[in-house]
Amino acid sequence: MIYSPLSSETICALATAPGGAIAIIRVSGPESINITQKLYHARSGKPIDQAKSHTVHYGELRSATGQLIDEVIVTLYRSPHSYTGEESVEISCHGSKYIISNILKELTTHGCRLARPGEFTQRAFLNGKMDLSQAEAVADLIASTNSATHQMAMSQLRGHFSSELSHLREQLLHLTSLLELELDFSDHDVEFADRRELKDLTQTIEKHISRLVQSFKTGKALREGIAVAIVGKTNVGKSTLLNRLLHDDKAIVSNIHGTTRDVIEDTTQIHGITFRFIDTAGIRHTCDEIEQMGIERTYQKLDEAAIIIWMTDEMPTPEEANEMAIHCHGKQLICAINKIDKIGNSHYDPTVYFKEENEMTVQTVEISAKHNINIDQLEEAIYKAADIPEISENDVIVTSMRHFNALSMALEDIKRVEQGFAYNLSGDLLSEDLRSCIHHLAEIVGGEISADETLGEIFAHFCVGK
Amino acid sequence: MIYSPLSSETICALATAPGGAIAIIRVSGPESINITQKLYHARSGKPIDQAKSHTVHYGELRSATGQLIDEVIVTLYRSPHSYTGEESVEISCHGSKYIISNILKELTTHGCRLARPGEFTQRAFLNGKMDLSQAEAVADLIASTNSATHQMAMSQLRGHFSSELSHLREQLLHLTSLLELELDFSDHDVEFADRRELKDLTQTIEKHISRLVQSFKTGKALREGIAVAIVGKTNVGKSTLLNRLLHDDKAIVSNIHGTTRDVIEDTTQIHGITFRFIDTAGIRHTCDEIEQMGIERTYQKLDEAAIIIWMTDEMPTPEEANEMAIHCHGKQLICAINKIDKIGNSHYDPTVYFKEENEMTVQTVEISAKHNINIDQLEEAIYKAADIPEISENDVIVTSMRHFNALSMALEDIKRVEQGFAYNLSGDLLSEDLRSCIHHLAEIVGGEISADETLGEIFAHFCVGK
Repeated sequence: MIYSPLSSETICALATAPGGAIAIIRVSGPESINITQKLYHARSGKPIDQAKSHTVHYGELRSATGQLIDEVIVTLYRSPHSYTGEESVEISCHGSKYIISNILKELTTHGCRLARPGEFTQRAFLNGKMDLSQAEAVADLIASTNSATHQMAMSQLRGHFSSELSHLREQLLHLTSLLELELDFSDHDVEFADRRELKDLTQTIEKHISRLVQSFKTGKALREGIAVAIVGKTNVGKSTLLNRLLHDDKAIVSNIHGTTRDVIEDTTQIHGITFRFIDTAGIRHTCDEIEQMGIERTYQKLDEAAIIIWMTDEMPTPEEANEMAIHCHGKQLICAINKIDKIGNSHYDPTVYFKEENEMTVQTVEISAKHNINIDQLEEAIYKAADIPEISENDVIVTSMRHFNALSMALEDIKRVEQGFAYNLSGDLLSEDLRSCIHHLAEIVGGEISADETLGEIFAHFCVGK
Repeated sequence: MIYSPLSSETICALATAPGGAIAIIRVSGPESINITQKLYHARSGKPIDQAKSHTVHYGELRSATGQLIDEVIVTLYRSPHSYTGEESVEISCHGSKYIISNILKELTTHGCRLARPGEFTQRAFLNGKMDLSQAEAVADLIASTNSATHQMAMSQLRGHFSSELSHLREQLLHLTSLLELELDFSDHDVEFADRRELKDLTQTIEKHISRLVQSFKTGKALREGIAVAIVGKTNVGKSTLLNRLLHDDKAIVSNIHGTTRDVIEDTTQIHGITFRFIDTAGIRHTCDEIEQMGIERTYQKLDEAAIIIWMTDEMPTPEEANEMAIHCHGKQLICAINKIDKIGNSHYDPTVYFKEENEMTVQTVEISAKHNINIDQLEEAIYKAADIPEISENDVIVTSMRHFNALSMALEDIKRVEQGFAYNLSGDLLSEDLRSCIHHLAEIVGGEISADETLGEIFAHFCVGK
């Protein structure tokens, strides 16, 4: 971690969305309290530049010409006990756009600069309040819309990912230091470490990085939502089922004022996981060439889906089952047998036609979309098909493409080290790959690795004067 | 002012718009600190229920099941030093909808109720933190989009309207008390006040109320924007001019992120006053009956406008000027002589055709819309035509229809009192109208007037035991 000197510029920005009853304007930097003081007239008469950190003050904000802009609440944060680590002020004003723009105008007139996107968090990173992966988690947390994305971002923000990386880094530095010592003292024909032990440590590290790389598949699915296709003949009840599956979630979303415009159609939450429904046309046997092409396109769309719900209201033919099996190869299939409320419509089983070589996981649920029967069972089947490990606030799941790329490169590095051991390569060659691996991991948290630091690790373990 | 006992219910609501980096959840009521304490885990380990008012605390918010929802900043306001006057908490969290809805869910689980619209301000009113007209000003302030609406709302919020009403009320109570004493002691044949003096006082009050009633015309125009129509022949340059007039303002508005969707097309600000442009079709001489009807509609639309900009690029005929004069009767007309950059196009004056009986105010400005010449002069002419008195933060202008209605009724009451004096009516008859007048004014600030209060006024001025 590199600690930069505090920035000399004081920045300001609206931190809340415009349009509410209250708005918060953030000011951060060395002059934040002095600049605010120039506009602020305390109700108590006491100037805020004498006030303690973490205190709240009520007063008036006036323009340079003395015109009253608003009655505000000012909160002080003294360096380093602020989000950015700098002297900071939060101005809580009425949520009028006129007031907001006037306060920002006055702040900039008095020496503030409008902040760039993410600049407060960037400063928090530069001032050592958080590492890069934690800084990235702030954006993820704000964007989180369900329990899973919330937990992943929260875990990352609280530094669980960082501490795993830090643990890996320690192991790698230890490995490097041992190999480099071997190199420095090569004339003396000394072997500082048992190569067997080094190989085991390398393998442990490789498994660890590999697990992180693999977690990205889950992380990506959770962030973007797991794709589900509902297929079946026309009029089998696909739309009714979709509405059933979407219903509860939509009601919850609309509980928060103002969210409506952001609602993405056709996603639902099951146990905090987002599922994204892919629109497909109905499938039916037809001689019409053009319609047949449309049905082909439906089958092609199934490729996008991780889970396919095959909806039927009568026993399919072996041919139909066979065609479905071809398109569901390697996927999760749920046979939803609809209209079970109708007499004589239960107890058929489309799965009898499937063979072992179809290589798919199949579940069967009998439902009535119209009469809302067993929809909860179907949801459980969808959740089960997603096969998402339960995520707690301490679990580390890679969600960022940047982290995934860095980890993938680190994985290649460590694999080369393993191969090096297999071919009994010399320490200096292995050391280069190890450094590259450490470098790639360091990229994630935004730190830098210098040769000095590696040396520091050596001296911490060995006393050369001895 | 009636001071109600503090409400027993604790309410919560999102106070900022959803979608920003930060969101603020407000909690107010007797249990606000205790309920927050159940969810909040201080980073310092110290419980907030022991903390002082106006202090800020950093910690974690966890669900009843112990799941981490967010890292938050909690601000405490102790009764009566809060907005509502009650024990209050503000929770500053990350602006994720998932987090916001979960915090609100946990608060309600622990005994809060979701607040109704305006309920915090309603409580502030009920707890005597502000009167009704001030409470109404809060909503106006939040909705303010320009300097004029902002100043009017701010003036009202700061109680200038209330104190004018309070002053009027004192005068009215004094008047009433004198008349009622006259009544009580009528047997003794005592006259407590010179009737001439009472008449003068009544007249002063009437003038004062009348001025407030009349200010509503200005208040309404400022709130809704002053309607301006640009008329002229087709291709005279109306659209170019409109774009010139709208240009600067649009740029300012788009400086605030997220405002775009709220921009009302075709309004502009001149010296902080909103002008609203009415769309009109071009006017030209035509024999086409249908087109002639369209032009008639344009003339009809001019009725909506308070200000008309007549744009010309050549000397109009006497007939054209005459027709314009008919439609501009009683309005503000600005003759905008366009294309002055062209040779031979200056120094004509359309106003020579207007006669005194047209009864309109006329200004003339020579411009070039295309080359942006004298547009600032035209803006000054528009501003002058609006004839808006400059508004300072201390000026009282009635902006609410409710207040206007109450004041209008109070004005009728006081006029009846004046007539009563003229007809030398007895004190008890005048007293009834005075009470009604006081009642109507009291409605504005939300207070109630009782006979006891009137009596209190009497005893304050007179010692009956003496």
